Amino acid sequence: MKIVNDSFTIGSNSRNQMINITDNVQDSIRKSGISKGTVLIFCPHTTGAITINENADPDVVHDVLLTLSDLIPQDKRGYRHNEGNSDAHVKSSLVGCSETVIINNGKMLLGTWQGIYFCEFDGPRHRTANIQITGE
Amino acid sequence: MKIVNDSFTIGSNSRNQMINITDNVQDSIRKSGISKGTVLIFCPHTTGAITINENADPDVVHDVLLTLSDLIPQDKRGYRHNEGNSDAHVKSSLVGCSETVIINNGKMLLGTWQGIYFCEFDGPRHRTANIQITGE
Amino acid sequence: MKIVNDSFTIGSNSRNQMINITDNVQDSIRKSGISKGTVLIFCPHTTGAITINENADPDVVHDVLLTLSDLIPQDKRGYRHNEGNSDAHVKSSLVGCSETVIINNGKMLLGTWQGIYFCEFDGPRHRTANIQITGE
Repeated sequence: MKIVNDSFTIGSNSRNQMINITDNVQDSIRKSGISKGTVLIFCPHTTGAITINENADPDVVHDVLLTLSDLIPQDKRGYRHNEGNSDAHVKSSLVGCSETVIINNGKMLLGTWQGIYFCEFDGPRHRTANIQITGE
Repeated sequence: MKIVNDSFTIGSNSRNQMINITDNVQDSIRKSGISKGTVLIFCPHTTGAITINENADPDVVHDVLLTLSDLIPQDKRGYRHNEGNSDAHVKSSLVGCSETVIINNGKMLLGTWQGIYFCEFDGPRHRTANIQITGE
Repeated sequence: MKIVNDSFTIGSNSRNQMINITDNVQDSIRKSGISKGTVLIFCPHTTGAITINENADPDVVHDVLLTLSDLIPQDKRGYRHNEGNSDAHVKSSLVGCSETVIINNGKMLLGTWQGIYFCEFDGPRHRTANIQITGE
């Protein structure tokens, strides 16, 4: 059993954005030499998140971001945090800051339509994703 | 340390449904022979999810599904994805596509009232859950 | 590779509360002697959750709890579960009952502003968090 840590950077260019990082994660796995185990993708930012969703039709990403912003508006009455990004913190806790994916034969065991996304909720910013690959 | 992959199929019979798969997961653990470690339960579908919630009163499942559908309606204004299931994709990202549970003495370390559910948000369909058990 | 299980108790003093447990988790890691790997923090309660969010300004915690309670009211029409805590069950499934964090050089690889929180949604109560540390 080996444990390999890695990371990569991500640049967002709008306030709310989902950036497909599937190829970056697969590249970390390839470099690790691990063919069976798991990969943990972790967002070290409290106004970002990691999710898995449709990789084909970009309208799905649009609809996910639209729904989140309608449910959790940026200027909701009652917010106390004075940085104007309370909505981004709420979205981060609801979507979650990590995903774990099974690796088999050197590939992630994702469904046909699944891609891994870094969710930006308070961009544009430079961001980091931390990766840990464990296995044999 | 051993790593064992498994999977099982699930049939849903309504559009929104939570199916208790706790026994299926425990069965995969028993077959693996692993008594200490973790089990990862992963949904490879972008309109499904995995969650852990009350295993006793089915009214809890009803109330969870009711609340999700009220918050995230199927026919929300502004959706662009033309398959009529944008709501299912949003629910999938909010509930999340996996859970990880501790195994101790061959059993999952779940609370008394916890069960593991496959969440169907765009059924009825045939679905798969992927399982990875890691430990000794 | 070692696998070490641990747990600690948490006391909440209001119905909705986020309790910073980062130091408790770091203490479990220190006791385990594991310097590289992962820590899984698991909530065995169906009306609680685990999340990672801002550790500095307590207004962020206020705003997260406010938004959750506005979206998911305690007395929503249509709830069937007769214990008056359906909202807490819904919040638990949306926030999620666990988080996994990378350990490197004996420390959690958290972002500068990230803290780990036990989320109480049906307090005040005595609660438990289960911990599993895996690595070398």
